[in-house]
Amino acid sequence: MRLSRYFLPVLKETPSEAQIVSHRYMLRAGMIKQQAAGIYSWLPMGFKVLRKLEDIVHEEQIRAGHVPMLMPTLQPADLWQESGRYDAYGPEMLRIRDRHDRDMLYGPTNEEMITDIFRSHVSSYKDLPLTLYHIQWKFRDEVRPRFGVMRGREFFMKDGYNFDLTKEDALHAYNRHLVSYLRTYERMGLQAIPMRADSGPIGGDDTHEFLVLAETGESEVFYDSAVTDIRLGARDIDYDDHAQCQSIMEEFTALYARTDETHDEGAFLKDVPLDRQRTARGIEVGQIFYFGTKYSEPMGAMVQGPDGKQVPVHMGSHGIGVSRLVGAIIEASHDDKGIIWPEGVTPFHVGIVNLKQGDAEADGACEKLYKSLEAAGLEPLYDDRDERAGGKFATMDLIGLPWRITVGPRGLKNGVVELTCRRTGESEELTPKDAVARVIDIYAPHKAHSSAHWEPMARQSFHTWL
Amino acid sequence: MRLSRYFLPVLKETPSEAQIVSHRYMLRAGMIKQQAAGIYSWLPMGFKVLRKLEDIVHEEQIRAGHVPMLMPTLQPADLWQESGRYDAYGPEMLRIRDRHDRDMLYGPTNEEMITDIFRSHVSSYKDLPLTLYHIQWKFRDEVRPRFGVMRGREFFMKDGYNFDLTKEDALHAYNRHLVSYLRTYERMGLQAIPMRADSGPIGGDDTHEFLVLAETGESEVFYDSAVTDIRLGARDIDYDDHAQCQSIMEEFTALYARTDETHDEGAFLKDVPLDRQRTARGIEVGQIFYFGTKYSEPMGAMVQGPDGKQVPVHMGSHGIGVSRLVGAIIEASHDDKGIIWPEGVTPFHVGIVNLKQGDAEADGACEKLYKSLEAAGLEPLYDDRDERAGGKFATMDLIGLPWRITVGPRGLKNGVVELTCRRTGESEELTPKDAVARVIDIYAPHKAHSSAHWEPMARQSFHTWL
Repeated sequence: MRLSRYFLPVLKETPSEAQIVSHRYMLRAGMIKQQAAGIYSWLPMGFKVLRKLEDIVHEEQIRAGHVPMLMPTLQPADLWQESGRYDAYGPEMLRIRDRHDRDMLYGPTNEEMITDIFRSHVSSYKDLPLTLYHIQWKFRDEVRPRFGVMRGREFFMKDGYNFDLTKEDALHAYNRHLVSYLRTYERMGLQAIPMRADSGPIGGDDTHEFLVLAETGESEVFYDSAVTDIRLGARDIDYDDHAQCQSIMEEFTALYARTDETHDEGAFLKDVPLDRQRTARGIEVGQIFYFGTKYSEPMGAMVQGPDGKQVPVHMGSHGIGVSRLVGAIIEASHDDKGIIWPEGVTPFHVGIVNLKQGDAEADGACEKLYKSLEAAGLEPLYDDRDERAGGKFATMDLIGLPWRITVGPRGLKNGVVELTCRRTGESEELTPKDAVARVIDIYAPHKAHSSAHWEPMARQSFHTWL
Repeated sequence: MRLSRYFLPVLKETPSEAQIVSHRYMLRAGMIKQQAAGIYSWLPMGFKVLRKLEDIVHEEQIRAGHVPMLMPTLQPADLWQESGRYDAYGPEMLRIRDRHDRDMLYGPTNEEMITDIFRSHVSSYKDLPLTLYHIQWKFRDEVRPRFGVMRGREFFMKDGYNFDLTKEDALHAYNRHLVSYLRTYERMGLQAIPMRADSGPIGGDDTHEFLVLAETGESEVFYDSAVTDIRLGARDIDYDDHAQCQSIMEEFTALYARTDETHDEGAFLKDVPLDRQRTARGIEVGQIFYFGTKYSEPMGAMVQGPDGKQVPVHMGSHGIGVSRLVGAIIEASHDDKGIIWPEGVTPFHVGIVNLKQGDAEADGACEKLYKSLEAAGLEPLYDDRDERAGGKFATMDLIGLPWRITVGPRGLKNGVVELTCRRTGESEELTPKDAVARVIDIYAPHKAHSSAHWEPMARQSFHTWL
């Protein structure tokens, strides 16, 4: 993308309404614009990151064998009356009356609707196991929306629902979600620690929240510092393998890690070695639940078992806050100049800064770099505006592309350009050709990471090659 | 995808509420489920098609130089009060009051909001031309929703908005949209004819609707039959070339083609040769508008021109009904057995029917076919259920995959499988290897069609290769 043709309305001043760093940087980098309290437009660069996160979530869910679909944003009230949650839900639920005076609501979650879909179409254990999910806009009418997209009212969420014949199968689905979520966050460059959580209004016994450690987190967390050394990495995962998923779940949840809601001070002090006891703040970026027959029983989601008897299915629900993740990634990865995107989610792979726009040689070198990078399947952002170097550097630092190539007449005289790492600030002089090769190398592991383990199905579903 | 692991709830009976063929087939093929009047869940196969159409729209918009972003579904009422449309819009607008008694609405379109974004961030002619678009759920509270997704209340629409300094530039944006829309529809296997239209509540002088001819269309249309012979085809298009876009616009709109709203019987009888006068019905799948300064003036979307003076920008808005297109494609392409997907939008490229599930040889041959097709980047749907052949064929015909490979013990004895074209019903016996090669060949032009003309940018934005 050439910046002259893009819409990147960078702000010079820090907006006064923004209390936390991700909100400030998202506004300043022209990623979002507030349209009403807790309701945002995603400007082009913000949308690009949001869409990349959505793609990663889809890919990892499909890889785990979960089936994508899409439920509407508005729901009829009667489904919620059936489950008993219509009255229970409180003023966070946005209630709507249509022109025929029918009671509707803007869905804050979808347990009722998915259970209705299931009971309408599935009647035999032979169709199980089944996990359906969607990524859709939700609404919760927070009394005091704040922190930008971190605590918005209209937010983008992945929510998935498993249907299983037995509790044992449903617990495997729980473990499968835990593993797929770990993979998802790691691909986004995040460490999200599963912590034992409180089930809240969804209900149920088994539940873990995934927390990203960050000073601005809304939850106080207590953990054994050794938990931060565990990584999923590139290990091969067979999502049909109950034992493997169980063992990964145990590996990641054996050590003490809890939010303040479930924190047990006695156990913490007793079980965690003194030098590994940590308290910090965390941002919740996902949660998984097993809740058994809590919805299937009252709503009649039954299947005929192998013995011919009707039994309610065992269910769980599993969510990832996709729009919130954009903020969480920034909270976890920034400095005082701006955002620092992890390579896996950056809106553009590399920035090109032309120090002397209009100079034939500099322009030519930039064009050539731009086209070579595009030809390699990378997406550069070329700052081709007629602006002074300082302004261009400040913009690049603010928007946080992980790599920058700087092109100027002085370097070109020696046949070199400068490749700079946003995170370390370190620069290296290279020929333009070598700079392109280096950037290709940098992104190669990310490319390999996803295609190597990727079912063609996933690629086809969300990545039209037609 | 293996059917045993998918969720494809095919119905045997024809649902009584469905009056038109696309609605019937979408329900029967397990693509959608109604959740309330005019509000649908998109079950996995329906969602897959919807997502393919969304991808095609994104690709063609980005190719035309338009910039994707995303506005929220809910909007504050005050923006609409500013433009004067809050009172004008009538009961189709779903009005909502939040917990703080603020007036909101579920956006039926986005002229006001995009104008607000523009005026907040752009102040110079140097930032023009600019076209921003998004694909988002909209709501229109139709008094009598019907025809399934063709006239739903919650619907998925692409709407784009151009901002230009002069009327001439804005008319180029109009032409650019017309061309990009023609390309979009052709990739979907549709002929959509631009017809002079009425501007309705959006306002403005220049407007064309795109109509797909179909018996069940809601509009009566009048046209010169020669208009149906014009195709965009694979011609190279430079979207920056005003003259080329203008000439394509003229080529496609020179002949008489109007809806009943703008039909002029005298001109029709006079200008169209008798043997080419046609009346038919059509489904509206898109519309483009130029409306000048209708929103920019009252809302103060001004830029400083080259002469230093403040001038209101010239705007237009341009829409494609993405969810409605799923129905329109089926209306235009089906027979009495079910849907016939065009190759460009089919949810799966080829079906594999195993005539004798459980037979080691048949199972093995199917597995090998399945894996070879996936390895070639194609997405097969393998009916691996233990069902009789008749049921499997009926399902494949109903869901409408354009190609089917039938595998049975008798054929395998002679080393062959059967490749069947859904549209013609013609079958051919081939070795499994040749059948795979044939299917790859069939889809090759679609693959080439998009990648050959495709900016790397487009692919990167919506098709994470990371």
